[in-house]
Amino acid sequence: MRLHAVFVFLFAIISCECWAYIVDPGPTVIATKGAVWPQPKKITIENTFSIIRPQRFEFSAKRNTCDILNEGLIRYKELLVTEWQRLRKNEIKNARRSRERVNRINYNQWNDDDKFTGFLEVVTVNLNKPCEDSPYLGMDESYKFSLNNSEAILESDSIWGILRGLESFSQLVTSAPDSRSLQINSSYIEDEPRFSHRGLLLDTSRHFIPLATIKTILNGMAYSKLNVFHWHIVDDHSFPYESIKFPELSAQGAFHPTLVYTQNDVSAVIEYARMRGIRVLPEFDTPGHTRSWGVSHPELLTKCGAPYAGLLGPMDPTNENVYKFLKDLFGEVTDLFPEQFFHLGGDEVGFECWKSNQQINDYMKVKNYTKYEQLEEEFIQKVVDIIDELKSKSIVWQEVYQNQVHLPQGTVVHVWTGDTKRLMAQITRDGLPVLLSACWYLDHLSTGGDWKKFYDCDPLDFPGNAEQKALVMGGEACMWAEVVDDTNVVQRIFPRASAAAERLWSQDANQQVKERLEEHTCRMRKRGISAQPPNGPGYCI
Amino acid sequence: MRLHAVFVFLFAIISCECWAYIVDPGPTVIATKGAVWPQPKKITIENTFSIIRPQRFEFSAKRNTCDILNEGLIRYKELLVTEWQRLRKNEIKNARRSRERVNRINYNQWNDDDKFTGFLEVVTVNLNKPCEDSPYLGMDESYKFSLNNSEAILESDSIWGILRGLESFSQLVTSAPDSRSLQINSSYIEDEPRFSHRGLLLDTSRHFIPLATIKTILNGMAYSKLNVFHWHIVDDHSFPYESIKFPELSAQGAFHPTLVYTQNDVSAVIEYARMRGIRVLPEFDTPGHTRSWGVSHPELLTKCGAPYAGLLGPMDPTNENVYKFLKDLFGEVTDLFPEQFFHLGGDEVGFECWKSNQQINDYMKVKNYTKYEQLEEEFIQKVVDIIDELKSKSIVWQEVYQNQVHLPQGTVVHVWTGDTKRLMAQITRDGLPVLLSACWYLDHLSTGGDWKKFYDCDPLDFPGNAEQKALVMGGEACMWAEVVDDTNVVQRIFPRASAAAERLWSQDANQQVKERLEEHTCRMRKRGISAQPPNGPGYCI
Repeated sequence: MRLHAVFVFLFAIISCECWAYIVDPGPTVIATKGAVWPQPKKITIENTFSIIRPQRFEFSAKRNTCDILNEGLIRYKELLVTEWQRLRKNEIKNARRSRERVNRINYNQWNDDDKFTGFLEVVTVNLNKPCEDSPYLGMDESYKFSLNNSEAILESDSIWGILRGLESFSQLVTSAPDSRSLQINSSYIEDEPRFSHRGLLLDTSRHFIPLATIKTILNGMAYSKLNVFHWHIVDDHSFPYESIKFPELSAQGAFHPTLVYTQNDVSAVIEYARMRGIRVLPEFDTPGHTRSWGVSHPELLTKCGAPYAGLLGPMDPTNENVYKFLKDLFGEVTDLFPEQFFHLGGDEVGFECWKSNQQINDYMKVKNYTKYEQLEEEFIQKVVDIIDELKSKSIVWQEVYQNQVHLPQGTVVHVWTGDTKRLMAQITRDGLPVLLSACWYLDHLSTGGDWKKFYDCDPLDFPGNAEQKALVMGGEACMWAEVVDDTNVVQRIFPRASAAAERLWSQDANQQVKERLEEHTCRMRKRGISAQPPNGPGYCI
Repeated sequence: MRLHAVFVFLFAIISCECWAYIVDPGPTVIATKGAVWPQPKKITIENTFSIIRPQRFEFSAKRNTCDILNEGLIRYKELLVTEWQRLRKNEIKNARRSRERVNRINYNQWNDDDKFTGFLEVVTVNLNKPCEDSPYLGMDESYKFSLNNSEAILESDSIWGILRGLESFSQLVTSAPDSRSLQINSSYIEDEPRFSHRGLLLDTSRHFIPLATIKTILNGMAYSKLNVFHWHIVDDHSFPYESIKFPELSAQGAFHPTLVYTQNDVSAVIEYARMRGIRVLPEFDTPGHTRSWGVSHPELLTKCGAPYAGLLGPMDPTNENVYKFLKDLFGEVTDLFPEQFFHLGGDEVGFECWKSNQQINDYMKVKNYTKYEQLEEEFIQKVVDIIDELKSKSIVWQEVYQNQVHLPQGTVVHVWTGDTKRLMAQITRDGLPVLLSACWYLDHLSTGGDWKKFYDCDPLDFPGNAEQKALVMGGEACMWAEVVDDTNVVQRIFPRASAAAERLWSQDANQQVKERLEEHTCRMRKRGISAQPPNGPGYCI
């Protein structure tokens, strides 16, 4: 009855001798202790260690500081305190079970251990340059951390580097062998990301995802050093973005008047993300994937003719009011989102409805168009120009490039399907920056822990020269929401997106991957992320 | 980027005209209101209705009664009250949003509605025969329910039928059009299950599932009229069953000393299930899948020789102490579980270790065995005899049958893999009762809402005569736990297991299946089951 166990184990013990599997059901993956995810560029961990007493521990920001730094220090101190309290609670629980007394922690015990270097009481945080206000593409995320002889220094030129360093520091901290204290080994880290765009797309149209859950997801992203929350906020099925200029869009187009994101909600998401060094990239997909817009504004969409009469198709590219509407709406959106980029979609435009509409065919004749791709090109061109006027930069799904729309320099092409290696080579040969998502579709399920296929995907794995490779900005894991909602979305994202996160951050990972991911999963669990088990049988304690 | 949407929608709109899909992203499935899942054998719903005021509503047990009935009535009254309170809360919330006053409910309004027949104040519950103590294979689950002119009667010869009828009654109740009151349409139901064994297997060895979550799962089972909780309690990876006679089995063989089910926990599960008419069927799989037993009792397992030296294999069938041990342990288990059947496993026994052990080969020579299947046969035969002596009946996985072990009359063969139609035909031709699980592996994932493949599976779909078909006791959905734990197990079971549940209960379903399953999912949600979305884009409110 457990046929699939074969696959799970074959996969789990891929590095073991094969014969072991035949008589043995395969090992339970044993989590590492104090390993960092994603793997830093350079890390040395000694076997000497310090002990942390949370009540006598502090971060000390010696140079520049700002709200992001202050809040970050509070957050990471809190994580230590919570973990320590958890250990204490477990101890009391276990003592009750075995009817033993709980003794006071005797911190003097450590002096007998020749690997003990002292208590870590201060982590000095040196932010060498003033804080930047909001995260952006290409921000400096590099940092150095050293703990030597119980003296710890975290250093970066950039607040974003400090945030990444705080995360790494927090991951080095584990429970001491007495299971009562926090321990950190002497260590040295020099770290920076491999790619500057490391994203997670969340679709909030196919199912509504509550604000609190989005914040949980942002936490999980920070724990995996992902730095772009690509908010695919509206689509065919619902329009939950509550616009000031066009409140009817969500009033009529959301699943329910209460299942919306108000301007305050959106601002809260942006601020929560900013505090964690995460960009919030809005997507308003056009001209397809817009059925929900048509509930309140049917005039924006194409009225199909026979045999589709009565249906509405993609936006009507021949209607000048459409562009006026989009400029108004997108102006509001670009004002609300500090993000430099705007994702304008452009994928999966079906031509059947346009073909069936006489007015559109007349328009094409006048324009001398012979293909519907030309009509699409005209539409996208105008939207790209709007985004340009609004001083934003465009990101488009690959179809826009493939349909030969002329794209302004710097427009990013987002690859999601087909012969992606060939496509990545073409796009970069044309000098356009590119993002990869094709291999990171979190809604694609297969039996068992399938993070490995996400882990094995490399955005630079296509034929091209160094200049072409330099145009790869990174990639995004995509959580399309057809079959996820608040009941299962966090579980489905983590730790699977964390696998993509390491591929995007780490130059040279591949060490103890499953054991580190097991630890990372349990660590996320302790921090309130319902990450599902990655590696087959096992447990977090 | 949403390639898989194609499949979701193709599947979601399977009954629509095909061309609609081309320009339309497919409909959001609209849930039914007050439909019963699983579909009753006979149901008529009129368009006249009664209103329920929970504060003036009661069940009245006129004939026999007992603890199961009393608690059942309390539970189902509570569901009504909770649902009504939920409506009131939403109303207050919506009123605040729109800054309107919340008026008192005016129950007189209904008198103007010519479909209104009155208030439903009493459901008379006629249990015609005395309560039975515990559920068992073949128990009577039939019931009749009628609501006519605001007079409701639920009737059955059996407490189990009354429980099923209470569930159906609760599902007929919906919110009234004013969204403030509870409404139930005049209706008539005559119902009984198609199969008497409708199970859910839960593996608590690959991951530990907390007691509270098991209770949640039992609730979900009751809401879908599943009646066997097959507890695959131990396996290779951990031994969480805390035995009185052999406490070392879990003390050493569980993942952690706290991740165990004490005798009290097991009794609590059995009692919770009994109250809901659910049998708890224990499985202790032997001779394979026993690695965790070997942590404290390595002497029970085969010491492998070269090339597997150092490893332990399946139980050692040549060691008489093994049988003594099993008899002691299984005696304790059969005392603890009131269930008539005992699942003794017998699946996936690898012969490599036995082959590599000299003592075992010597034993085989003495016995004149030429195949390792004969050794396995001897082992299973002895275990079946033990179960027989303990006055229990055996269920075995199909390998035991396929390896031609002589099975006492009435031993049930559980089919999980291979050419299942041929196998079901063979087994029933040999006059043995059979259970099907092969098509209901909940750990097998595919992209999108995949309940349809579970729904389409029919246990009677094999070549055979009426006598053979009569030997099909039913089936079980199986939740193997390699990649599920407390974070995702409930979501993965429901509503997918509910699809199997309808196939096992209903003679003639197939009506408005996706719409009813959508409602059933949202209903389970309201009742605290984190059922995941079944049908693609949508929402529960």
